[in-house]
Amino acid sequence: MELSQVGEFGLIQRLRSIVGEPGDGEVWIGDDAAVLRAPSGTILFTTDLLVEGVHFDTGFTGPEDLGYKSIAVNVSDVAAMGGVPRRAVVGLGVVPGLEVEWIENLYLGMQQCCQEFDMAVVGGDLTRSDQIIISVALLGNPAGRLFIERGNARVGDAVCVTGTLGESAAGLRLMRQGNRERLDLLKAHLRPTARVKEVQALRRHLPSAMVDVSDGFCADLGHICAASSVGVLIQESDLPVVELEGVELEESPLQLALAGGEDYELCYTIPEDRCEAAMAAVTQATGTRVTKVGEVVEQSRGRVLLIESAEHPLEMPGWDHLRV
Amino acid sequence: MELSQVGEFGLIQRLRSIVGEPGDGEVWIGDDAAVLRAPSGTILFTTDLLVEGVHFDTGFTGPEDLGYKSIAVNVSDVAAMGGVPRRAVVGLGVVPGLEVEWIENLYLGMQQCCQEFDMAVVGGDLTRSDQIIISVALLGNPAGRLFIERGNARVGDAVCVTGTLGESAAGLRLMRQGNRERLDLLKAHLRPTARVKEVQALRRHLPSAMVDVSDGFCADLGHICAASSVGVLIQESDLPVVELEGVELEESPLQLALAGGEDYELCYTIPEDRCEAAMAAVTQATGTRVTKVGEVVEQSRGRVLLIESAEHPLEMPGWDHLRV
Repeated sequence: MELSQVGEFGLIQRLRSIVGEPGDGEVWIGDDAAVLRAPSGTILFTTDLLVEGVHFDTGFTGPEDLGYKSIAVNVSDVAAMGGVPRRAVVGLGVVPGLEVEWIENLYLGMQQCCQEFDMAVVGGDLTRSDQIIISVALLGNPAGRLFIERGNARVGDAVCVTGTLGESAAGLRLMRQGNRERLDLLKAHLRPTARVKEVQALRRHLPSAMVDVSDGFCADLGHICAASSVGVLIQESDLPVVELEGVELEESPLQLALAGGEDYELCYTIPEDRCEAAMAAVTQATGTRVTKVGEVVEQSRGRVLLIESAEHPLEMPGWDHLRV
Repeated sequence: MELSQVGEFGLIQRLRSIVGEPGDGEVWIGDDAAVLRAPSGTILFTTDLLVEGVHFDTGFTGPEDLGYKSIAVNVSDVAAMGGVPRRAVVGLGVVPGLEVEWIENLYLGMQQCCQEFDMAVVGGDLTRSDQIIISVALLGNPAGRLFIERGNARVGDAVCVTGTLGESAAGLRLMRQGNRERLDLLKAHLRPTARVKEVQALRRHLPSAMVDVSDGFCADLGHICAASSVGVLIQESDLPVVELEGVELEESPLQLALAGGEDYELCYTIPEDRCEAAMAAVTQATGTRVTKVGEVVEQSRGRVLLIESAEHPLEMPGWDHLRV
């Protein structure tokens, strides 16, 4: 059977059955990071593989930005479990003729991200390859034994999201056009901010479920819905969509916000009675805006987007690495 | 500057200065695995990146063997620090048109290796790529706070090695000839045995320094010499070289043993007065042969191979991923 027939998430389901059932109290395949129980404590463990021509184009992205982002996307996965990043290893595939300085700048960018989050790259592996490959694996600490999964959203919970949606996707499109006027959008794409500080403020308010927005808001919120067996009702007018005044793009701000991906914002659910206090705590501690965008509903109602009181299915395509 | 001018180990030195000094009591870049101190305990952390066309050829290597080996090479790194493997994450780059069954068989092979060592694959990342990419990162536990570095070999220590050297390299060459008669050699290449059980028996006898033989015996023993600022004197007649009776290969058994690589045997140094007991303990517990092959000498004497009482420099090329 061809991969394109099952897609990324179909394949993950098949592999899940091969690797077996998680150890006691552990979370394995299917969340932002694995949760491990060592005799001595709880560990978060995640990995992301970035490949030239798929995740980045060295014509648009310099090595420092690329290094920064390759660490940041892993940090975001640890943040989405409620944790803080600690130590990373890096597997690097380099193409013949690559300059030593390019690799040093890649590592300088990694180091900048590490310093921001008080973490470190502690080892790795180097090899030749035909495309540049950057594989990062990251260890993090949760808050004590507490971590935030995808599967605990409950009907009636509020749905919230940090920051703005669609900026990274807009930045990528502008970069491809050679338009470098909106530096805020380019930066959102090249140097996404992993929401670690926001999670520190948020987690004592006990969100019920959380993901980071990497594949796209619809797709990632869909992961919460699938894992929690719930639906959602999202108010279009409440979504913190990218501001694109004076910018010419094929897609609307709403489309970029729903399906763009690589925002690395946090999308979480939380019981209504704790929602306001949690949003205020995050904004007070970090200055980052948090927006309530909808509510968790019965699974039978599906995933719905309310646009001017009319209901639309919330099913914009997200990023499936094996289909696109 | 071009990569080929500095080579793998030159580049690693440069990157080391960028990532900074290790945390208190930690070991970062430059050993088989990083050693991390969590508040709650000590962790070993390592990664290996395998790329199609560089590390494997799908024409020779089936997915099950490849999956097994991709885990085993990481397990070997943890063993070389004196530890046991616990949990792995896998980044997988797949080429368009790859069959789902191929990937499932890859994971079955990984699972076989995991079961052998009571460990698990707990997460990962999937993406498209132009070559098949398998990136494994592995966490392990040392014995308490004890781990075995490369830098503590002392003049007068014995140099020992487990198993046989050169079998994997001979197996690879036979496979390329289409000769599948010597299954023992093919197996040594396709399904190397990580020496975890051997390390369990060995480590209470306190070897002073240890590496696994991945790049080649000369190259890897050279890492101990460089890190410990010592030389070595190796007796050719004592080396456990691959037996190649009736097999036609360009290289001699000695050449394959010294420079072949991918043996995943353990090469360690140990004070003379503990050497015999340690060898006996490993063999008794596991059945694996251990051979004393030489001694640690002053750095000024260099790295010497004694062949029929004549001294030769012990400098066969090993595997430099960025030069070959």
